[in-house]
Amino acid sequence: MDASPSIRLGGGGEINSKIELDSPKVATTDKLVSGDKKVYCRCWLSGTFPLCDASHVAHNKETGDNVGPLIVSVPKAEEE
Amino acid sequence: MDASPSIRLGGGGEINSKIELDSPKVATTDKLVSGDKKVYCRCWLSGTFPLCDASHVAHNKETGDNVGPLIVSVPKAEEE
Repeated sequence: MDASPSIRLGGGGEINSKIELDSPKVATTDKLVSGDKKVYCRCWLSGTFPLCDASHVAHNKETGDNVGPLIVSVPKAEEE
Repeated sequence: MDASPSIRLGGGGEINSKIELDSPKVATTDKLVSGDKKVYCRCWLSGTFPLCDASHVAHNKETGDNVGPLIVSVPKAEEE
């Protein structure tokens, strides 16, 4: 596994070392409908990106970080 | 400005150096309704976190990273 470190230069080093590295910018768009609930990755390590697969747990443990997912839900029409 | 680098140990160093640092894990939940569209931060640098404020642009430029936001929308009921 390539363990070459990239130094965080105070302002924040590279965050993404895995997802769509050949893309100039990884922006994701998603559409939800009423009754949907999705858990989105924000650690850029998920095997099911853009959705979360709990990879942040091992990452936080290894680095002392505290990142976690974004959970977005759309209540059913009668629940609104 | 604290420029102390944290080394990425191959597996990925600390991603979050700014948001709710006293929290053990920053997980965000949000509810959307039909017609909503929100742009969420995934670079952990936004001044309007959990929403995006384009901080990823300067970050990507400075570090060569390619992170970008998550855009979630809920079509209006008749558009579904």
